Amino acid sequence: MERVAIFPGSFDPFTIGHEALVHRGLLLFDKVIIAVGYNAAKSGSFSLNARMAMIKKVFADNPNVEVDSYEGLTIDYCRKKRIPFLIRGLRTAADFEFERTVAQVNRAMNNDIETVFLLTDPEYSFINSTVIRDILIHKGDASSFVPSIVNLSDYINK
Amino acid sequence: MERVAIFPGSFDPFTIGHEALVHRGLLLFDKVIIAVGYNAAKSGSFSLNARMAMIKKVFADNPNVEVDSYEGLTIDYCRKKRIPFLIRGLRTAADFEFERTVAQVNRAMNNDIETVFLLTDPEYSFINSTVIRDILIHKGDASSFVPSIVNLSDYINK
Amino acid sequence: MERVAIFPGSFDPFTIGHEALVHRGLLLFDKVIIAVGYNAAKSGSFSLNARMAMIKKVFADNPNVEVDSYEGLTIDYCRKKRIPFLIRGLRTAADFEFERTVAQVNRAMNNDIETVFLLTDPEYSFINSTVIRDILIHKGDASSFVPSIVNLSDYINK
Amino acid sequence: MERVAIFPGSFDPFTIGHEALVHRGLLLFDKVIIAVGYNAAKSGSFSLNARMAMIKKVFADNPNVEVDSYEGLTIDYCRKKRIPFLIRGLRTAADFEFERTVAQVNRAMNNDIETVFLLTDPEYSFINSTVIRDILIHKGDASSFVPSIVNLSDYINK
Amino acid sequence: MERVAIFPGSFDPFTIGHEALVHRGLLLFDKVIIAVGYNAAKSGSFSLNARMAMIKKVFADNPNVEVDSYEGLTIDYCRKKRIPFLIRGLRTAADFEFERTVAQVNRAMNNDIETVFLLTDPEYSFINSTVIRDILIHKGDASSFVPSIVNLSDYINK
Amino acid sequence: MERVAIFPGSFDPFTIGHEALVHRGLLLFDKVIIAVGYNAAKSGSFSLNARMAMIKKVFADNPNVEVDSYEGLTIDYCRKKRIPFLIRGLRTAADFEFERTVAQVNRAMNNDIETVFLLTDPEYSFINSTVIRDILIHKGDASSFVPSIVNLSDYINK
Repeated sequence: MERVAIFPGSFDPFTIGHEALVHRGLLLFDKVIIAVGYNAAKSGSFSLNARMAMIKKVFADNPNVEVDSYEGLTIDYCRKKRIPFLIRGLRTAADFEFERTVAQVNRAMNNDIETVFLLTDPEYSFINSTVIRDILIHKGDASSFVPSIVNLSDYINK
Repeated sequence: MERVAIFPGSFDPFTIGHEALVHRGLLLFDKVIIAVGYNAAKSGSFSLNARMAMIKKVFADNPNVEVDSYEGLTIDYCRKKRIPFLIRGLRTAADFEFERTVAQVNRAMNNDIETVFLLTDPEYSFINSTVIRDILIHKGDASSFVPSIVNLSDYINK
Repeated sequence: MERVAIFPGSFDPFTIGHEALVHRGLLLFDKVIIAVGYNAAKSGSFSLNARMAMIKKVFADNPNVEVDSYEGLTIDYCRKKRIPFLIRGLRTAADFEFERTVAQVNRAMNNDIETVFLLTDPEYSFINSTVIRDILIHKGDASSFVPSIVNLSDYINK
Repeated sequence: MERVAIFPGSFDPFTIGHEALVHRGLLLFDKVIIAVGYNAAKSGSFSLNARMAMIKKVFADNPNVEVDSYEGLTIDYCRKKRIPFLIRGLRTAADFEFERTVAQVNRAMNNDIETVFLLTDPEYSFINSTVIRDILIHKGDASSFVPSIVNLSDYINK
Repeated sequence: MERVAIFPGSFDPFTIGHEALVHRGLLLFDKVIIAVGYNAAKSGSFSLNARMAMIKKVFADNPNVEVDSYEGLTIDYCRKKRIPFLIRGLRTAADFEFERTVAQVNRAMNNDIETVFLLTDPEYSFINSTVIRDILIHKGDASSFVPSIVNLSDYINK
Repeated sequence: MERVAIFPGSFDPFTIGHEALVHRGLLLFDKVIIAVGYNAAKSGSFSLNARMAMIKKVFADNPNVEVDSYEGLTIDYCRKKRIPFLIRGLRTAADFEFERTVAQVNRAMNNDIETVFLLTDPEYSFINSTVIRDILIHKGDASSFVPSIVNLSDYINK
């Protein structure tokens, strides 16, 4: 039986921490669907199209990674796709408390969904999308925090 | 001597976690005043009237619970009402750090106010108003997270 | 109706942080029983007698404070005394996580016991019995960390 | 390809929290090996035999659960068994910090081992082996914290 | 060789906690530059001019304190000034996690910058600029949380 | 004026994390004294002589590093040496809470001592002496966690 998991997030933008986590998820699952959550009312720094294009480029050669998008609650998306596993990365204790709340709400609303937590590599533990957006706002260089194949300037204002 | 405590919050909306906490507070105090803090400049998801109506319905049969509202600092409200006890619930370590800051500021500004912390039941520990508002924004079903007598759709846009 | 609470601990030794907490508990309760838990198999730095003598001296003039001792589980002691309230102090987030576990175990074993948490004053937040014992082992001066009426050397090896 | 994971621990004793975690692990893996780590120099409250007998009884009807024991480092055991997945449960933020250290040490020593974290159910989050041992030392009743099929008194001093 | 450090922040407004930290930094460094970070697009509660005037008044008699301002990334400012030391205060565990992320990003982007953390005095640990702004919004009295020489009403709307 | 700091610890054994921290401390101070605290009543895994020999080997070529030992309270040692600065490393939020307590006790007992916290590099954040001792007890290979010049087997049972 094929085991599939969803790796949901806003990925605004996708970081090297996210990339490493997908590779770890592929050890555990036959297929990982990277699902970009968006909110029509809140535009984000990168457009949904830019975020999906960026991720597709990173995993262009990997047939076990699929890129999708969804609006609304993550668990409604899981239910619609009939996929019971979610992958989430953990970096810090604050992360943990937030993710625990989300996972417990998901379980209370749909007991069939299981969240699998993987640890972020220590050398990536300080990297997150907020940090990158902050660097870009202040016109700094964030290239070392995104997958090497991604040139962030290709995706800004796209 | 009658012992009275204030349970302040924005209650936007009131959750089953809040409801359980009031019942625990009533073991300790003769009367609990649920005080809905509002900010004229920031409307909230539910109107002040809707929030107060919701809470009054939950405790309609309990003469030891009073529902009130206030604008401004919580300690100014306590001072005006001459009530020296505040009840606050604790769910997580992050909660604790936030509440400690608030309680210490309150004490520094008015040494007569004592904050009494009660623990949230573990099965409600992941429930908070933000989670409920988030579910409603995404058109999910949050009914199991509010007191059973409350039908949230009765209070939206009221 | 008289409201009584138990303030349990090993108090090895009793600190100024403990003393301040008892005074805050007396605002909330008519009587506070300071209950020194001991373990016949584990002697502690100060003897049970020394710990009780020390606490009795601090509250000699306060008829609303009682000093008692118990062996075994705290909730069994509460049950035997028919007192449903426990007072506990909170200093740090690590404290909180520990106390939450204890309080939840107590509730699971006896639903009638309610733990009331009070916040330690910020200027006492770093003081605990372990710190004092550590200073004494290294022959340092810990007098500023215990109630001013207590002379620790009166209680050592008693 | 069969996916196997090791769930290591001292299980001194095995709790309902451990039991629930194994059931969640079985959603993700074809087989879960519960590996009881022991230390010849440190006896524990329950003997290795008692701990293994207890766990075997709980999963007697489940062919996908295996019970084993090991001495020494967990990663050496994994290497010897050629199994690259570890399951660990997370309850609190303090748990998380401890487990992160262990997982990072494991990865630094053997890059092929992946730790998969699953969340403990909120209603079991306060239950751990230390709590149970503490209740037993004080002659309290811990039966509601172990799997219902386990009668702890059958395993003491065995 | 003169040792200089930058103490960056938004200081909106400057608190007694900040003031105490500068005095501690001066034990360690020959000169401390208090650098007010601003964002042309986000005005803040106090204007940049008001914040700088307030800080200059506090340290008017101290030739080892310099007050400056910058826009953009803190590390770009450090690089431009050729100053490799940053001072940051730590109050809570949440603070620590945030500051660790920032310091690690800074190091990853410019390996020559070292962040030196000093501990906030326990009696100031609950004071921060957000708390003060919140009190002012609700028309409360925040005078005891800012340096005694500062009269906040002199700086509002300036 | 020469600036000197003490880096106290039990260093049982000295790790690559400790080594990196000393190098960072030397950016800030003219001299760093690595002070090995010992307790005559508690022997440790490595003898005091072995620990000092190990550290001296690591910094043999660095005239700005001195290695010393002390028994008793750290602040008494600082007072005797007339050195007002302590260096401590921070890895996790749990570390922070512990170190804050120690630093506040030190300040309460001797207001002239200032603790300077430096951040551990993220790739070393999981390394500590306990982890290494644990690996050695289980006969694992800990060589990658100590300075490359140190061969741990040279120091065992010395």
